[in-house]
Amino acid sequence: MKLYSYFRSSAAYRVRIALNLKGIEYETIPVHLTKDGGQQRSEAYRAVNPAGLVPALVDGDVAIGQSLAILEYLEETHPEPPLLPADPAGRARVRSIALAIACDLHPLNNLRVLQHLKHGLGLDEAAKDAWYRHWINVGLGAVEAMLAGHPQTGRYCHGDQVTLADVLLVPQVYNARRYNCDISAMPTVTRIAQACEQLDAFVRAEPARQPDAEN
Amino acid sequence: MKLYSYFRSSAAYRVRIALNLKGIEYETIPVHLTKDGGQQRSEAYRAVNPAGLVPALVDGDVAIGQSLAILEYLEETHPEPPLLPADPAGRARVRSIALAIACDLHPLNNLRVLQHLKHGLGLDEAAKDAWYRHWINVGLGAVEAMLAGHPQTGRYCHGDQVTLADVLLVPQVYNARRYNCDISAMPTVTRIAQACEQLDAFVRAEPARQPDAEN
Repeated sequence: MKLYSYFRSSAAYRVRIALNLKGIEYETIPVHLTKDGGQQRSEAYRAVNPAGLVPALVDGDVAIGQSLAILEYLEETHPEPPLLPADPAGRARVRSIALAIACDLHPLNNLRVLQHLKHGLGLDEAAKDAWYRHWINVGLGAVEAMLAGHPQTGRYCHGDQVTLADVLLVPQVYNARRYNCDISAMPTVTRIAQACEQLDAFVRAEPARQPDAEN
Repeated sequence: MKLYSYFRSSAAYRVRIALNLKGIEYETIPVHLTKDGGQQRSEAYRAVNPAGLVPALVDGDVAIGQSLAILEYLEETHPEPPLLPADPAGRARVRSIALAIACDLHPLNNLRVLQHLKHGLGLDEAAKDAWYRHWINVGLGAVEAMLAGHPQTGRYCHGDQVTLADVLLVPQVYNARRYNCDISAMPTVTRIAQACEQLDAFVRAEPARQPDAEN
């Protein structure tokens, strides 16, 4: 498989974790999000992913350009080890946590939105950073509320096996730290992210360890 | 089943369409997003959905508070008629279109973000409307690029059977029209939405036909 990736993209980071967890070998094809006016906007890349967003996974003649669609595809085509529980209620809980990050939090803070706040609305750095931290607080706060004290929360988000919820959580916590957000009010989120970060599949997916990593 | 819903919430609208398509009877429990400072923020509602967002579906002792997690749950527990194709590549394409709306477009324009633009950033109505139209253009433009000329696009987003992609598309087109966005540059999106809007399951899910509808 080929993964079109940018080392700092948290959506790409999710997919790298899942590929590692499932033991799938892949080739990284770097797509630089700020060089050349954004390589993801190039005609060549849009032929792979018409939406012009990173990541995209190519598996033979199948090209998928949405990280959660990629994760579900990997789950269906490479079911072991499973990243969703077997019961529909458990699957719904795991997907709800994953989507609370993928839909309700991450899209508000991704690069193109930050660029629009700056260039479209004329916000300065301080106002942009305040926006970022606001949605981290709201979004990770919601995830904390879903996890804290819930009987199915275990070592990881759902019991003691890694699931898609954890795969989404770790890159989001990485983003929060990168922007110096205070997440001390989210002890369950912090504890689970730290537990995941001890696992080799998560370590190898870290932005700093990617072939296109920069300082 | 019980659906905690707000007539104008496009995430609730998605779930209503899917429940209708699958012929599942449900009770609507209205949650007013602007009355009482937002009923979705109440302690009573947060006991159902800790994230404090609409919709939530309650099926016996299972409560799910993310629209896409609800749709996948309904697909797993009520597989007929299927809203995902049988093949992993087709499922990935349908999910990619659905997620292009659920992740890349809708979260940027939902009520709490518009409220934050106004009260947090002090944007006036014109600037708020420009934000809305910007992301409609970017987001539905990406969906148009995924659909137009693709060999698997048919009467609906994926062939001639309704899928989750259509379930997501129609409420988003409703939103675009409500904010007077010009989507004439998206003929495939427009054509497919119009085809869906002829189906009874979509008609009955329309905001204006809900028990909590207002002018």
